[in-house]
Amino acid sequence: MQKFLDPSSVALIGVPRNTGNGTFNNAEVMMRYGYEGKIFPVNPNARVICGLRAYPSIADVPEAVDLAVISVGRERVIPTLDQCIAAGVNRIIIITQGFADADQKGKEMQEEIVRRAKANGVRIMGPNTLGVINNFKKFTTSFVDVGRPALFSPVSLIAQTGLIHVASRNMGYREWGKAIDIGNGCDIDVVDTLSYLADDPETKIIVIHMEGIKRGADFLKLAAQTTCKKPVVVFKTGRSQAGAKAALSHTGSMVGEDHVFDAVCKRAGIIRVKNGSELSDAIRGLLLMKEMEGPRLGVVTASGAGGIMMADACEEHGLTLARLPEGLADRLTAGLPDWIHVGNPVDIWPIGMIGGKYTQTVITALTELLRAQEVDGVLAILPFPNSPILQNLNIVEFVKDLRNGAGNRKPLALWPYLDAPSFVDRLESMPGVACFDTIERAAQGLAFCYRYHQAKMRNTPVQRQFPVDLDKVRPLAEKGRSQKLLVGDDALLLLDLFGIPVVKSDIARGRKELENIASSMTYPLVLKLTGAAFLHKTEWGGVVTGIRDLKDLQRAFDRIVHNVSTRQPDVKVESVQVQEQIHGHELLLGLKRDHEFGHVVACGLGGIYTEVFKDISRAIVPVDQEEADGMLASLKIAPILKGLRGEAGIDWKGLVEILERLSFLASTLSDISELDINPVIATSNKCIAVDARILW
Amino acid sequence: MQKFLDPSSVALIGVPRNTGNGTFNNAEVMMRYGYEGKIFPVNPNARVICGLRAYPSIADVPEAVDLAVISVGRERVIPTLDQCIAAGVNRIIIITQGFADADQKGKEMQEEIVRRAKANGVRIMGPNTLGVINNFKKFTTSFVDVGRPALFSPVSLIAQTGLIHVASRNMGYREWGKAIDIGNGCDIDVVDTLSYLADDPETKIIVIHMEGIKRGADFLKLAAQTTCKKPVVVFKTGRSQAGAKAALSHTGSMVGEDHVFDAVCKRAGIIRVKNGSELSDAIRGLLLMKEMEGPRLGVVTASGAGGIMMADACEEHGLTLARLPEGLADRLTAGLPDWIHVGNPVDIWPIGMIGGKYTQTVITALTELLRAQEVDGVLAILPFPNSPILQNLNIVEFVKDLRNGAGNRKPLALWPYLDAPSFVDRLESMPGVACFDTIERAAQGLAFCYRYHQAKMRNTPVQRQFPVDLDKVRPLAEKGRSQKLLVGDDALLLLDLFGIPVVKSDIARGRKELENIASSMTYPLVLKLTGAAFLHKTEWGGVVTGIRDLKDLQRAFDRIVHNVSTRQPDVKVESVQVQEQIHGHELLLGLKRDHEFGHVVACGLGGIYTEVFKDISRAIVPVDQEEADGMLASLKIAPILKGLRGEAGIDWKGLVEILERLSFLASTLSDISELDINPVIATSNKCIAVDARILW
Repeated sequence: MQKFLDPSSVALIGVPRNTGNGTFNNAEVMMRYGYEGKIFPVNPNARVICGLRAYPSIADVPEAVDLAVISVGRERVIPTLDQCIAAGVNRIIIITQGFADADQKGKEMQEEIVRRAKANGVRIMGPNTLGVINNFKKFTTSFVDVGRPALFSPVSLIAQTGLIHVASRNMGYREWGKAIDIGNGCDIDVVDTLSYLADDPETKIIVIHMEGIKRGADFLKLAAQTTCKKPVVVFKTGRSQAGAKAALSHTGSMVGEDHVFDAVCKRAGIIRVKNGSELSDAIRGLLLMKEMEGPRLGVVTASGAGGIMMADACEEHGLTLARLPEGLADRLTAGLPDWIHVGNPVDIWPIGMIGGKYTQTVITALTELLRAQEVDGVLAILPFPNSPILQNLNIVEFVKDLRNGAGNRKPLALWPYLDAPSFVDRLESMPGVACFDTIERAAQGLAFCYRYHQAKMRNTPVQRQFPVDLDKVRPLAEKGRSQKLLVGDDALLLLDLFGIPVVKSDIARGRKELENIASSMTYPLVLKLTGAAFLHKTEWGGVVTGIRDLKDLQRAFDRIVHNVSTRQPDVKVESVQVQEQIHGHELLLGLKRDHEFGHVVACGLGGIYTEVFKDISRAIVPVDQEEADGMLASLKIAPILKGLRGEAGIDWKGLVEILERLSFLASTLSDISELDINPVIATSNKCIAVDARILW
Repeated sequence: MQKFLDPSSVALIGVPRNTGNGTFNNAEVMMRYGYEGKIFPVNPNARVICGLRAYPSIADVPEAVDLAVISVGRERVIPTLDQCIAAGVNRIIIITQGFADADQKGKEMQEEIVRRAKANGVRIMGPNTLGVINNFKKFTTSFVDVGRPALFSPVSLIAQTGLIHVASRNMGYREWGKAIDIGNGCDIDVVDTLSYLADDPETKIIVIHMEGIKRGADFLKLAAQTTCKKPVVVFKTGRSQAGAKAALSHTGSMVGEDHVFDAVCKRAGIIRVKNGSELSDAIRGLLLMKEMEGPRLGVVTASGAGGIMMADACEEHGLTLARLPEGLADRLTAGLPDWIHVGNPVDIWPIGMIGGKYTQTVITALTELLRAQEVDGVLAILPFPNSPILQNLNIVEFVKDLRNGAGNRKPLALWPYLDAPSFVDRLESMPGVACFDTIERAAQGLAFCYRYHQAKMRNTPVQRQFPVDLDKVRPLAEKGRSQKLLVGDDALLLLDLFGIPVVKSDIARGRKELENIASSMTYPLVLKLTGAAFLHKTEWGGVVTGIRDLKDLQRAFDRIVHNVSTRQPDVKVESVQVQEQIHGHELLLGLKRDHEFGHVVACGLGGIYTEVFKDISRAIVPVDQEEADGMLASLKIAPILKGLRGEAGIDWKGLVEILERLSFLASTLSDISELDINPVIATSNKCIAVDARILW
């Protein structure tokens, strides 16, 4: 990768003869940008381009080049690629679009490009890309000339678009240090580029814009390692239905399930942002303030109203207002009337107004908060420059002293609410200091620093092993594979083999057999239609609950038979499932194999409210005890499961273990595509799988 | 009010002798600001202040003044007020703090100020305020000198803080035209100031910052009238628990229930914003783009990735992507290869790249979208200035032509993503055009324009009248008033009198009577503990459901008696309630009288999930059929109530009528403080109140 971003020589194939605005002449842009390597323009119709000798074809270039950049029409891309290969070039950026982003023919051409590249050991970036920018080396392959920035940050971008390259002022913090537009990502993809930036000493933060992702498992593994070294911020678009549709036509990306990607981010310690404002706040926060080691914020404000806004914003972004350090309130109000109270937020207005010592109050409060054990980060809402209440205070010197005096690098966020742009750069040059545009964006920036700390501190789950009789599992799994499906007692039996508690249940072929089976069960019972023809039993009127005795049971059987024949007279009920009925909380547990990231374990509220409240937690396999516990705790219904208002909670430990066992099942039978246990009934002393469906 | 903002003469009482930074000399600030009326400084220790003759007391001022501004220490405020009254001043701003914002003594002094003012026909603004700014008249009473702005907007602010005055650049759009800081609002309050601004021709948009609200009913009525004339944007802080606590100590405001305030905003057509970014986007959108008559957005983008981000943002903010006008796609791709597709967002990149006509594509797409019937508003994601893809395009002239050609004022939002600040002002000077910092803020700004349109178009509900036998209601209501409470059958009877269907139910004193009553009921039955001592029946183990027959009933009675005696041996069960049991969806309906806004009707999910999902709709009384229908439709469980997956829905019309009747009940028995029907059981053919509790 390094040579893509820092080549000694570049051939530009398909560079136009004309120069100036609108010609998209990347030779011209490259020279203007200050690139110090050799440039070889390739264009059969020109002899000189931008004062450089032009060559009819890559074969005519007199020396080996580190990198070729192709921007010919899509029909000529493959022949040009062949010429590059013949000429011994092994790094190629294809600017041209009209491939997987366009139509079937484009998709086939793109596949052909990959085949030829792989066969010849050549790496391809693109197609449909602006290529790279490396501001450390004054290098760009962009044909859009946005000018080299005077200032840039050690933040590197991987994107599936050129937009964030050129709009960095609207989406980042200064310009990117390095930016890589992977375009359609036919060969070099997010994983390759992330791998390079993970170990790149010039990169302090990695930002990834993505629409879709390939090589998900590799990405997850690599990202999980990288986030222990530096923050990885992902802006994945196409979250909405409309967005997903637009993404498909933009780079031909399948965006995947958004909830699964959330689980990936959690596992890998990735900071996910959902729009440009969040992206910019995350970068500013993480670059300037780094980590915040807890959620407890100390706030100093020259405005009570601002303090209230901050309190609202804290709650929204998962921060808390710290307890004030012992004695601080007394020190601030010493000698003042009794009616002046100090809390957190520390409102300096009444103290300053009555005592006349605004500046001293600000100094004392900020100094002590930054030092205090009770406080993980500090926010100051201050008017400057030229505020009458902070007269004679050189804000830059003050903050410098403050930082030097604190003896630590706790985040210090500022909301300077007069006209302070000239101070921002100087303040932000001090370690741990960041300035934000609005109060809630300051809260958001701080919250990202706390989230990154949590991400770094996270544990990586290890799959717990359970004893399982594989000789019994094998035939059942075989049956599932051949049918593509296991339902009813087969599905429950498989769960049972993996140690997941299942309901007492049996299949009866006809009424007589049903009565026999029931005689050894404890009422109340449940009767269910079974068989592959009846996937959605309730829609067939095929479930009767609360069966109290034999008479009830007979009536229930008749009712199901009647319901089926009413709905479709030619379908016969061949068997029914009878189970002991358990009363408890109805939960839903499941597995789903994601195309990119492997199995995902899910658990949440079952029953009729499943779809409307979507109270489901998801985690990538493996799931261990801590992770499973966290999944349950993050549910909205967690307080109910724990026991609300004197009601008994559920067997939480039992449920945690079922999740661990499900994860183990997924790692054992890795070809299962979907598994639903719906419902699991959870009572205060057990959690029992009552019905299940497994798809291969 | 007008004279508060545009006085001919002002007395400044307590103005300091010193001038310059940090002296808070409001005479100096006022003169610098350009005020052209007469200023009379009052200070017994000075003869001249800022070159003006100073007077020992207000009594010495030689002529009547329109306005007095008091900034003496809190102990001297009341005597000074008396002097003002004696001198015939009847408009007074009290800058001084330390009143209801501080302690009990301050609160009492504030009450005394109000008494004296009322008795003498004097209006007071404050205390604890910066007073007013009126940029149309170069007038300010602020002691903080932030300089008079060169540009200001016809947007007026009412605030409970000085912060938004001075931080308008961070929270608004240019500077406020007029700003009124009501401070503690002891006399002049939000209602007074709103009333003035509602008819003020210099004010196009009213922005209200509030922590708490008094005179809620007046506010609601006035705001509802005002929003038909101009947008009212409310930034109410203290939404969170921490924020509410901070608000109490800032201006002594009780913030009230946040959900109730949401219902107030809905009823009054108020645009509520929750932070500074939203405030600024709302003002920019509403001021520049006015109304958007539907949710259908047309998007033109020079970046596919930007289009995807916009699609995500649309969905998040309640906008939709419009269907493209007939034939537009064909016109844009005429003569181009088949693989170029056009949708909405219209991605001009491939069209321009292959066809070479970026500029023409932008012109055609934007012109047609602005004219199309299928489109309510347009967003353009364009690179300028000096973008190679829009060469020779004078963006300002282009947008001017576009606006002139459209023949309408549909909103046109721009996200100019190169470095375009110099163009923003010129573009925004054209009608209907606004520029935003990020894509999602553009979506947000447009969404506010659509929300204002909806607010203007809203209906005002009228209470439907129902026949009711007041002779029967009266004694029951009397009983409730004297007990402060009606529960069980009494409560159900009251509902029944108001035509709300209630379950068949009776009270039994002892086992014998219970058996008698049950003999005329249809099993299954429910047995419940009753009586004022058992408010939370379930915690007493006092509810048994699913009673099938007489034996079951006897067992259930014994169990309840046992449960109570186990929990508290000295408490006796004197009576139980027996009801027919109905199976259906468990809902919760209720009334609550808000201290400020009167009765609020609520409905939503009942049962154990009520508290965790909080799926509750609220509306201010009166609630008519349309409003009630909207309340139900806005619930997350609405799809279930309507009937999901072949299941029957509930008796929706019946439930709507119950809500109307509840509203009627509230308007009849206006002293009820709380009424809960928990649960209402809803089945496909009826909705029945099963238990109720009414508090006075």
